Amino acid sequence: MSDASLPLTPALQHQLRDWLQEDLGRGDLSAPALPPGRCRAHWISKASGVFCGGSLLDFLFRVLDPAASVQLLVADGEQVSPGQRLLNLEAEAAALVAAERTALNLVMRLSGIASATARLVADLEGSGVQLADTRKTTPGLRVLEKYAVRCGGGVNHRLGLDDAAMLKENHLAWSGGVEAAIKAVRAASPWPAQVIVEAETEADAIAAVAAGANGVLLDEFRPEALSDLVPRLRQLAMQRSQGGAVVLEASGVQPSELQAYAATGIDLISTSAPVTRSAWLDLSMRFS
Amino acid sequence: MSDASLPLTPALQHQLRDWLQEDLGRGDLSAPALPPGRCRAHWISKASGVFCGGSLLDFLFRVLDPAASVQLLVADGEQVSPGQRLLNLEAEAAALVAAERTALNLVMRLSGIASATARLVADLEGSGVQLADTRKTTPGLRVLEKYAVRCGGGVNHRLGLDDAAMLKENHLAWSGGVEAAIKAVRAASPWPAQVIVEAETEADAIAAVAAGANGVLLDEFRPEALSDLVPRLRQLAMQRSQGGAVVLEASGVQPSELQAYAATGIDLISTSAPVTRSAWLDLSMRFS
Amino acid sequence: MSDASLPLTPALQHQLRDWLQEDLGRGDLSAPALPPGRCRAHWISKASGVFCGGSLLDFLFRVLDPAASVQLLVADGEQVSPGQRLLNLEAEAAALVAAERTALNLVMRLSGIASATARLVADLEGSGVQLADTRKTTPGLRVLEKYAVRCGGGVNHRLGLDDAAMLKENHLAWSGGVEAAIKAVRAASPWPAQVIVEAETEADAIAAVAAGANGVLLDEFRPEALSDLVPRLRQLAMQRSQGGAVVLEASGVQPSELQAYAATGIDLISTSAPVTRSAWLDLSMRFS
Amino acid sequence: MSDASLPLTPALQHQLRDWLQEDLGRGDLSAPALPPGRCRAHWISKASGVFCGGSLLDFLFRVLDPAASVQLLVADGEQVSPGQRLLNLEAEAAALVAAERTALNLVMRLSGIASATARLVADLEGSGVQLADTRKTTPGLRVLEKYAVRCGGGVNHRLGLDDAAMLKENHLAWSGGVEAAIKAVRAASPWPAQVIVEAETEADAIAAVAAGANGVLLDEFRPEALSDLVPRLRQLAMQRSQGGAVVLEASGVQPSELQAYAATGIDLISTSAPVTRSAWLDLSMRFS
Amino acid sequence: MSDASLPLTPALQHQLRDWLQEDLGRGDLSAPALPPGRCRAHWISKASGVFCGGSLLDFLFRVLDPAASVQLLVADGEQVSPGQRLLNLEAEAAALVAAERTALNLVMRLSGIASATARLVADLEGSGVQLADTRKTTPGLRVLEKYAVRCGGGVNHRLGLDDAAMLKENHLAWSGGVEAAIKAVRAASPWPAQVIVEAETEADAIAAVAAGANGVLLDEFRPEALSDLVPRLRQLAMQRSQGGAVVLEASGVQPSELQAYAATGIDLISTSAPVTRSAWLDLSMRFS
Amino acid sequence: MSDASLPLTPALQHQLRDWLQEDLGRGDLSAPALPPGRCRAHWISKASGVFCGGSLLDFLFRVLDPAASVQLLVADGEQVSPGQRLLNLEAEAAALVAAERTALNLVMRLSGIASATARLVADLEGSGVQLADTRKTTPGLRVLEKYAVRCGGGVNHRLGLDDAAMLKENHLAWSGGVEAAIKAVRAASPWPAQVIVEAETEADAIAAVAAGANGVLLDEFRPEALSDLVPRLRQLAMQRSQGGAVVLEASGVQPSELQAYAATGIDLISTSAPVTRSAWLDLSMRFS
Repeated sequence: MSDASLPLTPALQHQLRDWLQEDLGRGDLSAPALPPGRCRAHWISKASGVFCGGSLLDFLFRVLDPAASVQLLVADGEQVSPGQRLLNLEAEAAALVAAERTALNLVMRLSGIASATARLVADLEGSGVQLADTRKTTPGLRVLEKYAVRCGGGVNHRLGLDDAAMLKENHLAWSGGVEAAIKAVRAASPWPAQVIVEAETEADAIAAVAAGANGVLLDEFRPEALSDLVPRLRQLAMQRSQGGAVVLEASGVQPSELQAYAATGIDLISTSAPVTRSAWLDLSMRFS
Repeated sequence: MSDASLPLTPALQHQLRDWLQEDLGRGDLSAPALPPGRCRAHWISKASGVFCGGSLLDFLFRVLDPAASVQLLVADGEQVSPGQRLLNLEAEAAALVAAERTALNLVMRLSGIASATARLVADLEGSGVQLADTRKTTPGLRVLEKYAVRCGGGVNHRLGLDDAAMLKENHLAWSGGVEAAIKAVRAASPWPAQVIVEAETEADAIAAVAAGANGVLLDEFRPEALSDLVPRLRQLAMQRSQGGAVVLEASGVQPSELQAYAATGIDLISTSAPVTRSAWLDLSMRFS
Repeated sequence: MSDASLPLTPALQHQLRDWLQEDLGRGDLSAPALPPGRCRAHWISKASGVFCGGSLLDFLFRVLDPAASVQLLVADGEQVSPGQRLLNLEAEAAALVAAERTALNLVMRLSGIASATARLVADLEGSGVQLADTRKTTPGLRVLEKYAVRCGGGVNHRLGLDDAAMLKENHLAWSGGVEAAIKAVRAASPWPAQVIVEAETEADAIAAVAAGANGVLLDEFRPEALSDLVPRLRQLAMQRSQGGAVVLEASGVQPSELQAYAATGIDLISTSAPVTRSAWLDLSMRFS
Repeated sequence: MSDASLPLTPALQHQLRDWLQEDLGRGDLSAPALPPGRCRAHWISKASGVFCGGSLLDFLFRVLDPAASVQLLVADGEQVSPGQRLLNLEAEAAALVAAERTALNLVMRLSGIASATARLVADLEGSGVQLADTRKTTPGLRVLEKYAVRCGGGVNHRLGLDDAAMLKENHLAWSGGVEAAIKAVRAASPWPAQVIVEAETEADAIAAVAAGANGVLLDEFRPEALSDLVPRLRQLAMQRSQGGAVVLEASGVQPSELQAYAATGIDLISTSAPVTRSAWLDLSMRFS
Repeated sequence: MSDASLPLTPALQHQLRDWLQEDLGRGDLSAPALPPGRCRAHWISKASGVFCGGSLLDFLFRVLDPAASVQLLVADGEQVSPGQRLLNLEAEAAALVAAERTALNLVMRLSGIASATARLVADLEGSGVQLADTRKTTPGLRVLEKYAVRCGGGVNHRLGLDDAAMLKENHLAWSGGVEAAIKAVRAASPWPAQVIVEAETEADAIAAVAAGANGVLLDEFRPEALSDLVPRLRQLAMQRSQGGAVVLEASGVQPSELQAYAATGIDLISTSAPVTRSAWLDLSMRFS
Repeated sequence: MSDASLPLTPALQHQLRDWLQEDLGRGDLSAPALPPGRCRAHWISKASGVFCGGSLLDFLFRVLDPAASVQLLVADGEQVSPGQRLLNLEAEAAALVAAERTALNLVMRLSGIASATARLVADLEGSGVQLADTRKTTPGLRVLEKYAVRCGGGVNHRLGLDDAAMLKENHLAWSGGVEAAIKAVRAASPWPAQVIVEAETEADAIAAVAAGANGVLLDEFRPEALSDLVPRLRQLAMQRSQGGAVVLEASGVQPSELQAYAATGIDLISTSAPVTRSAWLDLSMRFS
């Protein structure tokens, strides 16, 4: 179970309404076959994995029935197994049916990501290296998919283009080099914003640390190359006037190589796999 | 290549803006390292699959640079291979970089669905049976993910709760049986709306056809059971006063069993797999 | 009284808020002449007709006063007469006055449509022919005006461009004929979507049925022509491989001719008259 | 032809997009039967009346095709006759068809209001009395329906609750009389805001003028009563310290009595009839 | 204490949500250091001034915690002094912290305006002349900043471009003079809309009154010039057929000259100073 | 002149439309006194200061007239003097007048902040200490007011609750001390997020650095206390395993004491004064 918490911001409240609307359109045509009055349902898991998204359901069902109630039996971030009852619902039948698909789609998708993350995190257990996500997220679900990664035991990378600067090959080329690029970006950034350089060569990585980068993303380096490079970068960092900390991150890592990379002394391995290559966790709703 | 076309409705235009905003937040912190003036980029595929989503890009890039231009080299629904150049872009560097991730995330996701659909559709080739999708779609992407299924050669099932009625186990139980349920729903539906019954037993399926259902979803039947049942349902349908057509659809089918099901005489096999179990197609943007 | 029910979708909730805002603008200038504290009001009908829209009022008044209460004495679809008390309200005086005009405008408009529909439906009583609406609805009120038609005893035609395809003269001409047009549309439509052809000649109608249209809208045919054509179309439909059902609909019918048309054997008469030619039902709010 | 002009505010732009969306939903299913490329269409009138709403069309069609062009042959407020060509259109076929119904619905509704207004205004010609509208307008169309009244030769009453204060029976009762009510409202209103009192008795009308009302709405008075009362109110107004002007307005007037009321010396006759009792003007679009 | 009341319109409700969202972004990163469960806080004033905005807080905090409660100890428009406790709060700690800055920013800004207004109004006490605001308001805060002016004892000028017409130098020049300009504007305006002319010369002011302006804004006249001009304008107004009232308003007045201007017989002095030149009132929130 | 650039994100585009709408309401009543056709105008400064906001105007005017053009003669961040011409405009007269007030309000407000910032920054010149802003910004204007601070030569503090964590007195108390609080927050934050502790005592500051805070906000310390404390904190920071950098920031500083604080060795002085205590820069628009 994770410590992740999910703030129900006005933007998220707005999105949940829109997502219900997407399925409802001009109204549920099956509604006339539903009884008036409150009824009960529950969710069960049909597979093993990490549950995620339950904390959204109370708000979601109340959009269509302000008197709906959701009783969570499993917290976000908890492991679940096939047949396990996840939550109890009580609301107007018409509201339960109208919100069912949207609610399940959301939680199945997020639980799929949390579960895939947890499997990779398990491979890194004991290594002291953290698994980080990327900005490869489904449009509209950035905050939730990053929350799912946290629920699976991963750590989030920057949330968007605006809360840390990442300088890539073209930024460096256009700016006349890593030093100039970092300087230009720092001058215009809020002071707490970190500057990260994506390095594709050893020389780039060294230049980035020397120029004061807060983090270096080492892209598609082999583990053996990293084992050599990482200590040199850390030593260089200690000699910088602004202090020794530099966060070293590997990307382009295959799942089978996680442990090899973890042994190189890096801080983080970032991967989009839990978002771009995971299956939804199979859940279903049953009327009680 | 498919014939699918994607209407850029006001709602979709609105969503594309929101998705750009999601990544941009309060602005791209790396922008000061970008040069003023127009620059060029192109996309290449790093894998084999079916391309989908290119028709959104012109609008998307123009939100941030009204003078942006997108030249598609591949149409939605076309097969692509590793290393293939997909499209050329020209716009302000700041706009290209700011929209890059959102654009790629969207097209990689949709192309992944189209590609997975195409693989299943290939298995059904020559059988006359169509592959249909479901309402298991990522919240906010219903229209686009269903478009991706069409680009992959599949056919769409109903788009939402409002454009066909699907009566499930609970609707039937609550209404006092399939006949009462269909009657209640027809009375309140637009006349062109189809009524589909999800049948979990042979008796349910027969009752549904007898009661005038336009379609029957035969859920988790074995192929041999269907081979027996399907002709009986078709015959029963021919005897109905309102005419002989009934659409018969199988669900709960494993990918390995597609051909066995296709041989049973059904019209459609519906599956959420291309949406819930597909990986994104790997694409990348390069500055020219 | 009808069985119509109106789902309070997020989109409709949003619109009700916008409609209150439209009248309120920057605030009710008369508010300083209103007392603090709760007060009571009721609505009465000043004319005979069919009531429609009451189910929206609870949500509407609660936008401005979450503690507002609405007690409906008449259900949507019920006949009302002059002087009849329709509902009781209790809320802050400022909220009652601020929402009054919007609430009345909405219900008077919808009740006017329901009443006009009911008058036409009465003319068809016993004929087995249904009265259908069209897409001629006031911008922004499509869902509600179609609900009003149901409350008046009519049946809805398609709700929008996306839940059934209607092929008109130009679609047929541009596509190279009715068969090609139906084929093109079916290939890209969700399978439950019906294809309807608007026929202006006997030849078009016959071609449409032969080509597998689910419905044919017979526009501006004379009753005598229909009496001859309808049985021929039904017979042709029975011979189609896909089954015998075809829905035959007449349009361009004057109110005075309803019974003559009903006698021709058609299924539906579609008309925009209850929307485009009806007067609002006169209602008023009184403080108790 | 009127001098009315219609500002295309951001709010109105937003609404036009929403109204297109309402009909389009998830996309026009008939689109695959439409040819790619630009095509031409025109509108003709099928009835006599006053045209209104043409100035919205350029924006409306450009939402779906930024290269659409609209050539108006008739200006808002002009009289049109059956068979008259109103405007020419050129755009992508898919955009023309997708926007057609929304555009026609809007213009037919507004032209219906303008036409009905013009008929009543004609009855008042030469009397010096103006025809005013009310706040009985279709939810969402306030600004446009009031524009239509101006196009028909009428004058607008207040646009909403926030641009003039209208004190009715209950305001007066709750505030302890007309003087107290006016005082309370004036104290909190912007200084240019007018205060109008709705009077149901002669005593109320006199009290309102004495208390400094800017306008008095004389509700359901008979013409003979007004002929006596109006000069007395004007004389009383001249003696007020704040000056002599008071606007006197009659409401509750039947169309047949317009001239009788006009002869009483009042300034305005306000009526909701052009909005609540008018039929749409019949127009149609033809492809060229 | 003022009599101003603030209607919580749907538009204002929407804005309050947006303003919370602006600070929250993708969520409060400090939330994991907050305890679950309800906690209490209160606000105190750190300076002297007029409190304004408290009536918004109940809605604001409930967006993030529907069970939040706000107990106001001071009403909008009341004078407060350093150290004074203004209100008590109770809500989830996470909601209190997340809404704190937005709530304080809003109330500190509005209280700053109310306080600055009250200081100028005090200078005019006993003169019978009112202090009016202008359309120089912070984008997005028009309604609230005008409410703050009322709370400080001022009177609002027109709320926007749509609730009174103000004709300036260019309107007069383009229209061919003040008479033509007034005529053009009156013809298209709702009848209760006032027409105000901004006069920069004595001749303009006289022409405006003669042409029937309801108000004249005398811009940058010296007090001695006004003492001469004002009685002449009033006399001219009395001779107009439409009645004697004209509202005379001075603008371009320095705070030190308020009393000199008040002595000239004008009705209003309008100034943007409380909005454009005021400091926020210093308030702070403390956890109890 | 600054290097600040302002990205015109979809959210900002949306806000600019809303702000125009706020003033326009149901339309500019003075429009009938404006000529059809394009006209020209220019802006001049009536005071000395730093210009800010010009980069928004092109988009703003094009909302109401897509053919509007704005020629900036001064860039954001440049010093301007009384009488200086700032920019030229060309558009429909109705669009120029309708957008004038909103445009000026925005630019006058932002230029006021930039100017006030520049005055404080000038006091720090040569000290190596930067002036930072706070989260005390006008609701709705966060991004723009922070941009104005950059235009005035200041540096931005965190942009919202989501891009750096600030732990205050209560966070520390509730979490059981600074170490526990930092640990809890880091565990759930994206890795690039900085953790800043607000210290009100020397002991808190020391504990914060020891616990690994990235920054310490030293609130209401006297300069002499800081001169002693700052070097001790820096030395302590150098000994931390995670590296030596800690950003030290003073707040609660009076403008007159800027230089005294700058001499203490801190990195930043943060102040809300340019936002909460600045007057708008006086600008005006003239028709050419």
